[in-house]
Amino acid sequence: MEALRKQVSDVAGEGDEVVANENKKIKLSSEVEVKRTSVSVHENISSFENFHLTKILNQNSSTKSIFVEGRFGNDIRPAVILLEKTSFVDEAIKKMLCKDMTVKQQFHNDIYGSYEGFPSAEFNGVKTTIIHPATEKHIQKYSSHPAYLVQETPEVYKNVIEPHIQSQQFSMQWVYNILDHKSEADRIVFEDKDPILGFILLPDLKWDMKHIDNLYLVAICHRKDLHSLRDLTADHLQLLKSISEKGKQNIAKKFNIPEKQLRVYVHYQPSYYHFHVHFTALSFDAPGSHVERAHLLDMVIQNIQMVPDYYQKATLVYAMRENDPLYTKLQEANVL
Amino acid sequence: MEALRKQVSDVAGEGDEVVANENKKIKLSSEVEVKRTSVSVHENISSFENFHLTKILNQNSSTKSIFVEGRFGNDIRPAVILLEKTSFVDEAIKKMLCKDMTVKQQFHNDIYGSYEGFPSAEFNGVKTTIIHPATEKHIQKYSSHPAYLVQETPEVYKNVIEPHIQSQQFSMQWVYNILDHKSEADRIVFEDKDPILGFILLPDLKWDMKHIDNLYLVAICHRKDLHSLRDLTADHLQLLKSISEKGKQNIAKKFNIPEKQLRVYVHYQPSYYHFHVHFTALSFDAPGSHVERAHLLDMVIQNIQMVPDYYQKATLVYAMRENDPLYTKLQEANVL
Repeated sequence: MEALRKQVSDVAGEGDEVVANENKKIKLSSEVEVKRTSVSVHENISSFENFHLTKILNQNSSTKSIFVEGRFGNDIRPAVILLEKTSFVDEAIKKMLCKDMTVKQQFHNDIYGSYEGFPSAEFNGVKTTIIHPATEKHIQKYSSHPAYLVQETPEVYKNVIEPHIQSQQFSMQWVYNILDHKSEADRIVFEDKDPILGFILLPDLKWDMKHIDNLYLVAICHRKDLHSLRDLTADHLQLLKSISEKGKQNIAKKFNIPEKQLRVYVHYQPSYYHFHVHFTALSFDAPGSHVERAHLLDMVIQNIQMVPDYYQKATLVYAMRENDPLYTKLQEANVL
Repeated sequence: MEALRKQVSDVAGEGDEVVANENKKIKLSSEVEVKRTSVSVHENISSFENFHLTKILNQNSSTKSIFVEGRFGNDIRPAVILLEKTSFVDEAIKKMLCKDMTVKQQFHNDIYGSYEGFPSAEFNGVKTTIIHPATEKHIQKYSSHPAYLVQETPEVYKNVIEPHIQSQQFSMQWVYNILDHKSEADRIVFEDKDPILGFILLPDLKWDMKHIDNLYLVAICHRKDLHSLRDLTADHLQLLKSISEKGKQNIAKKFNIPEKQLRVYVHYQPSYYHFHVHFTALSFDAPGSHVERAHLLDMVIQNIQMVPDYYQKATLVYAMRENDPLYTKLQEANVL
């Protein structure tokens, strides 16, 4: 159960990404909460004619999606609307382009021209999800929580992060269950049982284990005294190299992907404070693989080789969301 | 000409990402290469009526974009068409939803309903870039190509990358045009004219300049002797700090975004070898902001402060696509 809680928080950490299809997770609760006092909007809606927009909850211009809150007609119960532009369909592109699409030129320069294209109506469908009546939980879930970059000096680490890590230690049981083969033993891809240099490699729960192009595994080290990147010194080089090499070898062998197509990195901040390493397919635009959170293991090893106490003296930079419990603590320390 | 060919492929390193607006980098060369034997399609196009689709080059279902190759009418010269769905505009969403959008139900279950929405025509514009006539280089550039991680030692840099950079130098004219105010002078957001510490800050062509959540600007330094991250030493700390500080300040002021929401980084490999710095909104899942290509400027500064020749002695790790001319050279050097 605790493991589950952690994992849910991990997913929530992904923030702005489109979570439109994750509704299932809160379905049971909403069934209990919502009184069915009147007919659902789903029974007869054909347009948004009588929809009153209350608020834009979130917007993502890279995935072309927007989440809004509003009400239908006189119904006082709120609705959450999730809109997402659809991707182009290979099979339909010829018809869309050649038969129907008009273009309006914005400018051209030499061989390059910028236009606004207008496909005919059938190609303009927008994926639309209506949640009605929606609860406060739905509204929170689809709201944006802006992130800010933190400059974490060694002092901030000592004064804010270290006490935070201590307060989290009781919640590591789900990790220990994996290390002790009490949970998820059937999912282990590889294990090195050495108590100092050993680790367990297993698929991340975000991976469907079907598609190589979104491959995602995690290596969790056996030793319990390493909380994060901040703890790593020259003493741990052998462990880090071993995780890198054996991890890549075993993933390559088992899932038939070249080692050079594996992105191997740690998160800072991590989502739990027991040292672990992420392995994702390079082709996968993995959440948390951006430069404001990910640190390539090869670079970590190299930094420590150049400066043995690199991660004790560095100011580390990372993104922190307003709804993260650490956010308030960092704010109190005047870092945000 | 050879250098040009390489540079085009460098850009292709971003692969699946939408790079529709980086055309400028190959502009000069294409002017030389393409014989203007007939009128450009840009002179009078208003639809794709006479377009013949040859091939789908690449597709990205997360950014909702597709790149295709084809021909217009009897013109034997190929065209490359880049299509990308546009993101929702906050200001227009109320009008789009409440006044005009019809919905067709696919299914509903309890409070959740799945629909296809049809906004009225004005909201269905597709960002369309037409490159015509396109060269084989353009076609290669927008085709999909798998990537592999490279470990670039200082020796590999010296033997493979440095000669590559030398061969590219004559293709920097478009950068010099910006620095000399011969091009894009009206787009300059800020300029520090100092020949050593100065730079020009302007919007990246990928930014639509409408949405703050995909904000993207670039700072291009005035001095011409810095090619990339590899050249940076303690001598450049003042330049780097100045770009970071003044860049953030001016963007924050002009575009009303907190400085702490700006991701400031350099690419390695860069797509052109004149030192420049990227500024993107933290909320923007910007192409090239992943850990296998981006280096936070704050961390670069810090690494140099810890180890003045950090970037001369580091082994740098980055993703390299099969279609990049550097790929073959790195393969010949046994790095891939």
